[in-house]
Amino acid sequence: MSDSFELKKIATIENAFTENFGIPRQSGIAESLLSRIIFEPEFRREEAVRELADFSHIWLIWKFTEAERDNWSPTVRPPRLGGNKRVGVFATRSPFRPNPIGLSCVKLVSIEYDKNKGPVLTVAGADLLNGTPIYDIKPYIPYADLKTDAKEGFTALEKRRCEVVCSKALLEVLPFSLQNALLEVLAEDPRPAYQSNPDRVYKMSFGGFRVSFKVEDTTLSVINIEKE
Amino acid sequence: MSDSFELKKIATIENAFTENFGIPRQSGIAESLLSRIIFEPEFRREEAVRELADFSHIWLIWKFTEAERDNWSPTVRPPRLGGNKRVGVFATRSPFRPNPIGLSCVKLVSIEYDKNKGPVLTVAGADLLNGTPIYDIKPYIPYADLKTDAKEGFTALEKRRCEVVCSKALLEVLPFSLQNALLEVLAEDPRPAYQSNPDRVYKMSFGGFRVSFKVEDTTLSVINIEKE
Repeated sequence: MSDSFELKKIATIENAFTENFGIPRQSGIAESLLSRIIFEPEFRREEAVRELADFSHIWLIWKFTEAERDNWSPTVRPPRLGGNKRVGVFATRSPFRPNPIGLSCVKLVSIEYDKNKGPVLTVAGADLLNGTPIYDIKPYIPYADLKTDAKEGFTALEKRRCEVVCSKALLEVLPFSLQNALLEVLAEDPRPAYQSNPDRVYKMSFGGFRVSFKVEDTTLSVINIEKE
Repeated sequence: MSDSFELKKIATIENAFTENFGIPRQSGIAESLLSRIIFEPEFRREEAVRELADFSHIWLIWKFTEAERDNWSPTVRPPRLGGNKRVGVFATRSPFRPNPIGLSCVKLVSIEYDKNKGPVLTVAGADLLNGTPIYDIKPYIPYADLKTDAKEGFTALEKRRCEVVCSKALLEVLPFSLQNALLEVLAEDPRPAYQSNPDRVYKMSFGGFRVSFKVEDTTLSVINIEKE
């Protein structure tokens, strides 16, 4: 048997994450953010998702398209640990791993049939960049996947969150469907690790808008939101 | 960007499942069955698993080596639904899918360092055939992976289990480490769907032994266990 395994793209995700900056570190964090999954022409078959709507959550297996490197490093520095502590790559969900496979559990919101695109899945809570290729979709099966006694390892230390201040007028520059999602994304404090200059203005692309903010202590203040 | 994604084998699993017959339909069912994960030479680096032992469960991403087909079918017949009901392939964890990727959550029992094999992981509850290639190992992260409100779809109907009758003398033909694991595997009723002849003798290879059994109603009786 050959040692390599070639995967074929089955679908692509479409959402407001038009750049890596701002994407939550795991799935399920920006619960209000909706994404659409569009199958490749070969897989636009309504039968292929029969009974999928009876599950509330699904797994996406995808590729970190911006993480391809020629070499692999046995350790990585999780940004949420401050960026200077090294952890084994297999103890993390870092994109920089021997095979840049992403695994995300998302909420299945709806399945609609489009006469051109076939079945289109709408999911909530995805942490995938817009345009990411998907290689498999599986149901979340509680009796196999729900481990209520699981220990959280170093991720117990990861909970950096902040309070978001954003005027109603600014927030309403966004379409309604993106407003809560933006607040959830910002509450995770998307700054790179170890940056604590309260005067620095960060700019994030989000769903066709440019969002500017500052962070002081644990308060994130949105300064501007404008169309890109 | 190319539409295909080539994965490199990083490790291989070793366990008592020497044939597909008898492998539980999901991970976590044969909790007593231990498997060992042996990294490929390039990945035998102790640092790569640093802090992994602080997690209790891990994900394995692997390949269904006996499920490669030239064509994909949009529907499959889950054996536990009786074998005559068709469900969309993406609503199942069937091996026969566009990309034969397996996803299993297993319990991490220990990590030991071997001077030739590097870090060797011992895991419990795997549903992988002996020798299956593994492409990624990730920690199970409760805040992202634990969905306590998840709906179980058609798998709610899958719970066929049986009572196992096996004499102590027969069971003790097996090494101690395989005894409970065999009982767990048999309790799942490994027969193919829709077989109900109480006189039929089934034979299953398990850890170098040949196990013979019959099933009448919901009682599975072990007839013989012998070294292969």
